[in-house]
Amino acid sequence: MTMTTSDAYLLTPGPLTTSATVKAAMQRDWGSWDEDFNAMTAEICRRLLACANASERHACIPVQGSGTFAVEAALGTLIDATRTTLVLVNGAYGKRLVSLLERLGRPVEVMALGDATPPDPARVEAYLAANPNIGYVAVIHCETSSGMLNPLAAIAEVVAAQGRELIIDSMSAFGALPVDAERLPFLALISSANKCFEGVPGFGFVIARRDALEAAEGRCHSLSLDLHDQWRYMTRTGQWRYTPPTHVVAAFLQAMKEHAEEGGVPARHARYAANRERLVAGMRERGFETLLEDRWLSPIITTFLSPAHPNFDFSRFYAELKAQGFIIYPGKLTEVESFRIGSIGRLDIKVVDRLLSAIDTALATMGVDDARPAH
Amino acid sequence: MTMTTSDAYLLTPGPLTTSATVKAAMQRDWGSWDEDFNAMTAEICRRLLACANASERHACIPVQGSGTFAVEAALGTLIDATRTTLVLVNGAYGKRLVSLLERLGRPVEVMALGDATPPDPARVEAYLAANPNIGYVAVIHCETSSGMLNPLAAIAEVVAAQGRELIIDSMSAFGALPVDAERLPFLALISSANKCFEGVPGFGFVIARRDALEAAEGRCHSLSLDLHDQWRYMTRTGQWRYTPPTHVVAAFLQAMKEHAEEGGVPARHARYAANRERLVAGMRERGFETLLEDRWLSPIITTFLSPAHPNFDFSRFYAELKAQGFIIYPGKLTEVESFRIGSIGRLDIKVVDRLLSAIDTALATMGVDDARPAH
Repeated sequence: MTMTTSDAYLLTPGPLTTSATVKAAMQRDWGSWDEDFNAMTAEICRRLLACANASERHACIPVQGSGTFAVEAALGTLIDATRTTLVLVNGAYGKRLVSLLERLGRPVEVMALGDATPPDPARVEAYLAANPNIGYVAVIHCETSSGMLNPLAAIAEVVAAQGRELIIDSMSAFGALPVDAERLPFLALISSANKCFEGVPGFGFVIARRDALEAAEGRCHSLSLDLHDQWRYMTRTGQWRYTPPTHVVAAFLQAMKEHAEEGGVPARHARYAANRERLVAGMRERGFETLLEDRWLSPIITTFLSPAHPNFDFSRFYAELKAQGFIIYPGKLTEVESFRIGSIGRLDIKVVDRLLSAIDTALATMGVDDARPAH
Repeated sequence: MTMTTSDAYLLTPGPLTTSATVKAAMQRDWGSWDEDFNAMTAEICRRLLACANASERHACIPVQGSGTFAVEAALGTLIDATRTTLVLVNGAYGKRLVSLLERLGRPVEVMALGDATPPDPARVEAYLAANPNIGYVAVIHCETSSGMLNPLAAIAEVVAAQGRELIIDSMSAFGALPVDAERLPFLALISSANKCFEGVPGFGFVIARRDALEAAEGRCHSLSLDLHDQWRYMTRTGQWRYTPPTHVVAAFLQAMKEHAEEGGVPARHARYAANRERLVAGMRERGFETLLEDRWLSPIITTFLSPAHPNFDFSRFYAELKAQGFIIYPGKLTEVESFRIGSIGRLDIKVVDRLLSAIDTALATMGVDDARPAH
């Protein structure tokens, strides 16, 4: 069987490969004012809150646009501008949080860690103790630019111990990595439809503490991204404040049902972890090396160092894999040549095995007989 | 044949009824970084510029989110904050432009006209002549809250004659009403995927003059909504700056192809106008009255005054029509009881005839034997 590009698996950090049934849920037009549609939105929010064990004190507010739109909405609405936000930066998405806060004119400090170093909870604790002006700590759950799984629980613990507020960008992790608002206190967690819940792209969402939402009226710099307004309007009417991506919302509800049927977060985590293990083991057998040590690898996406072999060319490697039905992802590191392969989406270890065979073919076609990176 | 709600026609101003082939275009997952996807984005932008005869001096920049997100992106990016914007307000969408500018802290003046009065070009011209501080005039092409088609060409003429810049919110009109950038000069025109091009909701777009985009670096209050950044990034890489709603984009390209196959703007205008004429004639035969005089009716959506009959109840009317497969739209006027029926989307006069029969049934069921409004 020849794979065509229309069947290509997306081994990317989202948009990702979704099930046929999720896509089939987009075969109907919905009135965005109609109660049938409102019921879908309400069910999605209920399910998301339950997934984070956050039904008690938080609300779930969807935001039209990409995940970054939802992050900007959360930062612009929930942060009291008289207090500083400390951003723990170890990759492109941490840097984006800083860019967002700077654009909004909010005071920000950065703990810069380099691309391959996780934040050290003890160092964060000492920084907070020494800097009482810091009101908020913002952290990326899984830093997609390297694939690093940051030590969220330990960070949450020191932030809570120091009496500060935690903002979690869990874009690429929520749905596959456990989050429990009762054990791991947070002000806001942000994620999006097209990541570990395996929906299609078109909106993000914020799980935000209701007391902070209450206090945020009129604070947001943007009307479209005003999370307080969206929350109030949705609470009052059941509707999104401006036109929602109706088909994407319908697909997401189907995706959430499939997430629950699979066994929720633990089952999804197990499948993705198995994908990652098979992938990393297979790649290492072929001489590839991961950017990160094993203990920081995530089940979401893995960065591999590019082979040093003179015949290796990423564009060609990408094209050879695409021709065989697999779309991988370029690197996002400035310091080393690399590429990334995701382990999320509607795929399992059989797909990973086929990918590994495709990689063998691609390397042979390119005349690369040694996949080891430069040292 | 019994209509089920899953087959319901949306007689609303968008989201609207789309073709089966548009929805079928969402049955594939696309890599948002992949050149196949980038080619779709580029083709959409080329086609949109051609529809507005704006390829010469403008660029088309898509913006994730609802149409309001695209309007906010345009206002936040393109308007020089040292100059005032005059907004011509005759409905909810004009008011929203004012809210957006106020939230952004941009100087704004309002020419308030009431819900049923179009802007008078002579009055606009006199206002501009008397107020040299006005740099921009913002107008709604078709004011969906009443259904009024504003006299865009005449407004554009006086704005140009006075040397000011025109911003057109053509959300519900572009694609069905003619726009020609060479004859009708504008700084920016904003619309969205789920209106007269008959795509599904998930993004909007701005057709903006390139010289103004060039001058707008670093001006936008928002990172997500920065039209300059989105334009630069897209020009350089072919990609959207943050994750695009890939399936919605694929559906929109299909919708644009169907728009061209139908005969472009003139053919779409003719079909919608025929729908509106059949609808208004049929409703008047039944005793209903339109809010607006005939010359201000648009082919997009029409506001009907609610019957004065004591048995008439909009919620029940809505439910009775929905049970027969038609979703209509509540009114958005504060002064009079009304409802709205759209004539846009994948529907023709046969559907309008069936709707009129369904209205007869609904009125009979409710015991309303006289549809005339109070006077």
